[in-house]
Amino acid sequence: MSQAVPSEISPLAQLPPICSKLLEAKARKGWTFDQVAKVIGKDEVWVAAAFYAQAKFTADELRKVSEALDLPSAQALSEIGDHWWPNRGIGPTPPTDPVLYRLYEAVLVYGTPIKAVIHEKFGDGIMSMIDCKINVDRKADPKGDRVVLTIDGKFLPYARW
Amino acid sequence: MSQAVPSEISPLAQLPPICSKLLEAKARKGWTFDQVAKVIGKDEVWVAAAFYAQAKFTADELRKVSEALDLPSAQALSEIGDHWWPNRGIGPTPPTDPVLYRLYEAVLVYGTPIKAVIHEKFGDGIMSMIDCKINVDRKADPKGDRVVLTIDGKFLPYARW
Amino acid sequence: MSQAVPSEISPLAQLPPICSKLLEAKARKGWTFDQVAKVIGKDEVWVAAAFYAQAKFTADELRKVSEALDLPSAQALSEIGDHWWPNRGIGPTPPTDPVLYRLYEAVLVYGTPIKAVIHEKFGDGIMSMIDCKINVDRKADPKGDRVVLTIDGKFLPYARW
Amino acid sequence: MSQAVPSEISPLAQLPPICSKLLEAKARKGWTFDQVAKVIGKDEVWVAAAFYAQAKFTADELRKVSEALDLPSAQALSEIGDHWWPNRGIGPTPPTDPVLYRLYEAVLVYGTPIKAVIHEKFGDGIMSMIDCKINVDRKADPKGDRVVLTIDGKFLPYARW
Amino acid sequence: MSQAVPSEISPLAQLPPICSKLLEAKARKGWTFDQVAKVIGKDEVWVAAAFYAQAKFTADELRKVSEALDLPSAQALSEIGDHWWPNRGIGPTPPTDPVLYRLYEAVLVYGTPIKAVIHEKFGDGIMSMIDCKINVDRKADPKGDRVVLTIDGKFLPYARW
Amino acid sequence: MSQAVPSEISPLAQLPPICSKLLEAKARKGWTFDQVAKVIGKDEVWVAAAFYAQAKFTADELRKVSEALDLPSAQALSEIGDHWWPNRGIGPTPPTDPVLYRLYEAVLVYGTPIKAVIHEKFGDGIMSMIDCKINVDRKADPKGDRVVLTIDGKFLPYARW
Amino acid sequence: MSQAVPSEISPLAQLPPICSKLLEAKARKGWTFDQVAKVIGKDEVWVAAAFYAQAKFTADELRKVSEALDLPSAQALSEIGDHWWPNRGIGPTPPTDPVLYRLYEAVLVYGTPIKAVIHEKFGDGIMSMIDCKINVDRKADPKGDRVVLTIDGKFLPYARW
Amino acid sequence: MSQAVPSEISPLAQLPPICSKLLEAKARKGWTFDQVAKVIGKDEVWVAAAFYAQAKFTADELRKVSEALDLPSAQALSEIGDHWWPNRGIGPTPPTDPVLYRLYEAVLVYGTPIKAVIHEKFGDGIMSMIDCKINVDRKADPKGDRVVLTIDGKFLPYARW
Amino acid sequence: MSQAVPSEISPLAQLPPICSKLLEAKARKGWTFDQVAKVIGKDEVWVAAAFYAQAKFTADELRKVSEALDLPSAQALSEIGDHWWPNRGIGPTPPTDPVLYRLYEAVLVYGTPIKAVIHEKFGDGIMSMIDCKINVDRKADPKGDRVVLTIDGKFLPYARW
Amino acid sequence: MSQAVPSEISPLAQLPPICSKLLEAKARKGWTFDQVAKVIGKDEVWVAAAFYAQAKFTADELRKVSEALDLPSAQALSEIGDHWWPNRGIGPTPPTDPVLYRLYEAVLVYGTPIKAVIHEKFGDGIMSMIDCKINVDRKADPKGDRVVLTIDGKFLPYARW
Repeated sequence: MSQAVPSEISPLAQLPPICSKLLEAKARKGWTFDQVAKVIGKDEVWVAAAFYAQAKFTADELRKVSEALDLPSAQALSEIGDHWWPNRGIGPTPPTDPVLYRLYEAVLVYGTPIKAVIHEKFGDGIMSMIDCKINVDRKADPKGDRVVLTIDGKFLPYARW
Repeated sequence: MSQAVPSEISPLAQLPPICSKLLEAKARKGWTFDQVAKVIGKDEVWVAAAFYAQAKFTADELRKVSEALDLPSAQALSEIGDHWWPNRGIGPTPPTDPVLYRLYEAVLVYGTPIKAVIHEKFGDGIMSMIDCKINVDRKADPKGDRVVLTIDGKFLPYARW
Repeated sequence: MSQAVPSEISPLAQLPPICSKLLEAKARKGWTFDQVAKVIGKDEVWVAAAFYAQAKFTADELRKVSEALDLPSAQALSEIGDHWWPNRGIGPTPPTDPVLYRLYEAVLVYGTPIKAVIHEKFGDGIMSMIDCKINVDRKADPKGDRVVLTIDGKFLPYARW
Repeated sequence: MSQAVPSEISPLAQLPPICSKLLEAKARKGWTFDQVAKVIGKDEVWVAAAFYAQAKFTADELRKVSEALDLPSAQALSEIGDHWWPNRGIGPTPPTDPVLYRLYEAVLVYGTPIKAVIHEKFGDGIMSMIDCKINVDRKADPKGDRVVLTIDGKFLPYARW
Repeated sequence: MSQAVPSEISPLAQLPPICSKLLEAKARKGWTFDQVAKVIGKDEVWVAAAFYAQAKFTADELRKVSEALDLPSAQALSEIGDHWWPNRGIGPTPPTDPVLYRLYEAVLVYGTPIKAVIHEKFGDGIMSMIDCKINVDRKADPKGDRVVLTIDGKFLPYARW
Repeated sequence: MSQAVPSEISPLAQLPPICSKLLEAKARKGWTFDQVAKVIGKDEVWVAAAFYAQAKFTADELRKVSEALDLPSAQALSEIGDHWWPNRGIGPTPPTDPVLYRLYEAVLVYGTPIKAVIHEKFGDGIMSMIDCKINVDRKADPKGDRVVLTIDGKFLPYARW
Repeated sequence: MSQAVPSEISPLAQLPPICSKLLEAKARKGWTFDQVAKVIGKDEVWVAAAFYAQAKFTADELRKVSEALDLPSAQALSEIGDHWWPNRGIGPTPPTDPVLYRLYEAVLVYGTPIKAVIHEKFGDGIMSMIDCKINVDRKADPKGDRVVLTIDGKFLPYARW
Repeated sequence: MSQAVPSEISPLAQLPPICSKLLEAKARKGWTFDQVAKVIGKDEVWVAAAFYAQAKFTADELRKVSEALDLPSAQALSEIGDHWWPNRGIGPTPPTDPVLYRLYEAVLVYGTPIKAVIHEKFGDGIMSMIDCKINVDRKADPKGDRVVLTIDGKFLPYARW
Repeated sequence: MSQAVPSEISPLAQLPPICSKLLEAKARKGWTFDQVAKVIGKDEVWVAAAFYAQAKFTADELRKVSEALDLPSAQALSEIGDHWWPNRGIGPTPPTDPVLYRLYEAVLVYGTPIKAVIHEKFGDGIMSMIDCKINVDRKADPKGDRVVLTIDGKFLPYARW
Repeated sequence: MSQAVPSEISPLAQLPPICSKLLEAKARKGWTFDQVAKVIGKDEVWVAAAFYAQAKFTADELRKVSEALDLPSAQALSEIGDHWWPNRGIGPTPPTDPVLYRLYEAVLVYGTPIKAVIHEKFGDGIMSMIDCKINVDRKADPKGDRVVLTIDGKFLPYARW
């Protein structure tokens, strides 16, 4: 049975056409992002980001991923190869999808407290969202399993000149 | 030397006046949120949330915190006691402060990939931002210490009726 | 112990000053909205709406409510008496508070399906939000009690002229 | 006579193409959402949500619904089968359609009173819009029939950590 | 000479394709909305609303209007027949077209005074925009003819429960 | 019994302080806008507009109105006398109050049809919202009295140069 | 060499397709707006407005302009002939193009002073943007030539009724 | 009789307090902007801009203007003297006041045509809103006097580097 | 291997189709903007601006650039030749891409301080963004190379008239 | 003569009250930011940022700056001492002041080209706005002096995990 990922709706309509091709191929294979990630030794969230054009595969990674998904690598290399750079940031803001909105709600409700604790522990600066790693884990819990989202970003102190 | 936390500027202008009093008292004592948190057996991020009126102290906690900070508990109980309920969500959106914006940028850039991985691991549902715990840790790193932000929320499957 | 309801923060800052006085008096008495409602034979949600200046008490109701709450009725009658009309609609949109946001999310996610079913059952028209009654009930449930929100509004067919 | 549901206009333009196909097939059969719902033992509002890609059919349900509507199940399974996850939240905000706007107006006018009553009856927490059921009933009334919209959602108390 | 009404520009791009076909057919015949309205015994403004998918023709009206405009009724019945419900509200807000903006300006400038007078004359409630009739008349005036726009809507008193 | 019109809430907070004084004086006298209007030979809607600083009294009218309302004319003349010009347009947009929103909804739903009929009857131009008169009448109706809102504005043809 | 005016980008994507045809034909001929304007005895700014569908040619003007630009008049008459009315207002707001933004900046910076002077010289009313003429002239200046933009609009006093 | 210019309402609430003092003093004297302008040899529109803190008086001009208006120059020099720089741009956007909106409408409707003509006459560049002069004149006309607004700005060609 | 630059996604979807052709040709050749720039003696940032339709090549430059990139010059001259003028300003605001957002953040955080220093050094006026040159340099640094962005714009003093 | 910097207007109304005191003291002394900066060995732009609460002085710097400006250091230390952290990002967006808008325009017009060149020279990553230095220089030029704004920020490559 074929699996289609319509490319004309949000957020894919904003992205290079190869993105829906990659997602379709992955669906056809019935693979998880983690399975794709293992092909190139990366994390599943990072690979998901790359599938949504929010991170950049190397040409070598693109070839390996395409091959693993039975997809000719030519279109991928042509569209999101070395000459291409991600145009990051997708979807409406504020997000309307409840999964995304809950993340946004975390910023609304806990953003200021998090900022206060970061300053207390590190001083004047920020948590980098560039030099950062993001993980999503499933933690078993008798009262209902839990999503554990970890954002591990370098602290960058403000320059003073 | 006195420490003032002006109550008329963002985000405190949106909050009960006791909030700036609590922050001032904490500054006067020179305490961290973690020190306040230990008084009532809670986490520092949760206490910071409560100081910014984004979480609700019990009356008993309010008394202990007030006492620990050399603040009469009457104003606290009067303003944010049992009869009061948080009006959550503070600050402008999109946030302009770079610390807050980086969290918001995480939603813009990694929100869709996180959603994709959550669905893959859990099915159709969300990570609760109500039954959730948030921690901010400092991880030593020779290339620069890192902020490790963990959001641990219960997975809630969508009802089907 | 006194109970204060600061009038300078959202949404009270948008409302006649008597609103925070009424809420304070109610907190001082330790009454529920339902207890206040019984004084004048109304529903608790409607009374809450009137306390937030979203519905209009009659002069007689204002007198009875003030008396029951040990509040002189003069200020109430002076501010929100017969000559006053509600200026409805409060709080930011989209709402940032999670309780309010969930109601808003219901419109985002289920609004179109609800519209489709209303048309199917009633034809071309709307559910009135003027000739309507709203109730909030607590339903016991072993897996966690449930909020049952009922909106009962007259169907108004579109005029054709 | 054929019935067309143009897929290029709001909100269908935001949704997988199968959505307009399902709505067309239902129109062709002259069925109500309730009739479709009975095929799979679900409620009409939930089925309407699934037709608008705001809820997720199981593969089995998709097959039954397609068959009942004389539609080949292949396209449905290909587009909104197991590999697909709803991207929830449709239509403009604030809504411009009067049926949808009235729901939104309920949030503007009665949202804060509802929040106040929920807190009074349940404490600090929210009504879940994930573990919730929504019904639309027609209540006969000599002065004009009424729409009775019921939202039955689990109360979720705020975690304190 | 043919008359084309391009369907890909605002507000027609938001509407069922039949709308531009109806407007084209009317232009080809050189008819006014009033002439179309007389065919089905309705007012010209209501018919214009129906041509812009803001009101709903009965199947019988659609057949008569199609026939009168030398248009096969099949497409009309297929697109905006019994199974279709208007998705009301069109064009950008605030409107940019000066004709529409002047109506919007009336709300900005005279809306509050109109509200004050309505309350004074009717009490707490609204003028229905569902049970309402709208007319546009031309009144001769030596200093320049005048547009007389009349909105005649039922007063709906607020329910109190 | 005194009647207070708090000046610090919307829309009065945007207006000269004399506005709430005028509204208070009118409330104290128990007068309608029509009664005030008769003092100076004007219409009630226009007088309401002037009370909300959306129209400009002459100095003579201000004196007569102040006197009729037992208000010293000095403050009125000082604040909104000859040297003052209205800064028109009040309240949030889109309006949240249901009375005002219904007028706004008329623009959303019927604005384009009204524009179409105006062009058909008058050609390329607009209905003036400057050279216009607005009336609000109560029309008795056994099924419920009706609000008849009339906007009578000069047609202004577009200049061609 | 051909000259193409792509019709799918802003602001042409909002306009009838004939607009890009007219602009292309003008470019092919190498004419200025002034040369086109002389064909029908109008001003160049007005003709530019008509080319961007912001003003309405008469059928006769359309024929003359089409003929002068070696364009068959049929498409023009079909699309923007007698049955068509401009839908005015184009481009994003605030404008992003620096030429347009400077005009917008004039409103931001000098709008209030201009209003103050208009009221001083004319009383309570507005400068009509309907009965108005706009010119753009080049004035030689040794320090750099200057653009002289003149807006000549009828003063319209506010009606008082 | 005193003339008050309340400083707490838009746009004065955004401006240095001296602005309302200057406007009050001018009102008290009964002067026009032109009369003030003659004191320092400037144009009335420029002086109005300076009164609304949108242009900068020299210290000498401030002294002369204060003296002419019987105002001590100390407050003016203290608030908007040499150390002060205008923070330009006032009022809401889009403007709600009809006088200001008409200017804004000119940008919406005629902005693109004006841009097209500027490029045709001058090439790639802009009309400066910094090196510009703005005048408002009254032109007598038997059909109604006209406002002639002239914006005379230097053409600035785009740098190419 | 072919290199494709999809023209239907942001910001290219807003630009003349030739833009993606130029970017594709450059990618196919494997050239930098600097290499293209040397062909016509311009800076790389300016050439990048021209490739994104934010600056205007002369016809001669277009021919040279097309030839150097093995592209027929006809399409370029046809689309963005002499008759074409840039419609400047691209991408969403606030920008969501982190590279662009950092520039925007510079305005939010350092804009007011930069304004203060410009006024101190130059008086009342602005830094021209028309008569300006922008460079991007790479500065080697043992702690991590640095981007040096220089904006060199003419100071324009405010006219006083 | 005293110099006042009113603290209740934008952007100072958003900032700790000490900010207007510091700016007033600097104005009273007649110092430039550069003169203040020399007291603590910093750059003038950085000091201006600190005066507008967009950067953080050390306690020692605060003491030296206060002393140099004849200001008691107590208020400064109390308000923006060690316990305080900047809440960065000030003023409206998009900015309305022309000096600030020109910087914003640089992002709109040249942001995408700058991004393209940064990627070409550095790969996938951003220019840090945290580890960055900003300078404003005056460059003499016979055709008009020029503002040279330099932003020197560390390149941060995107993490891949």
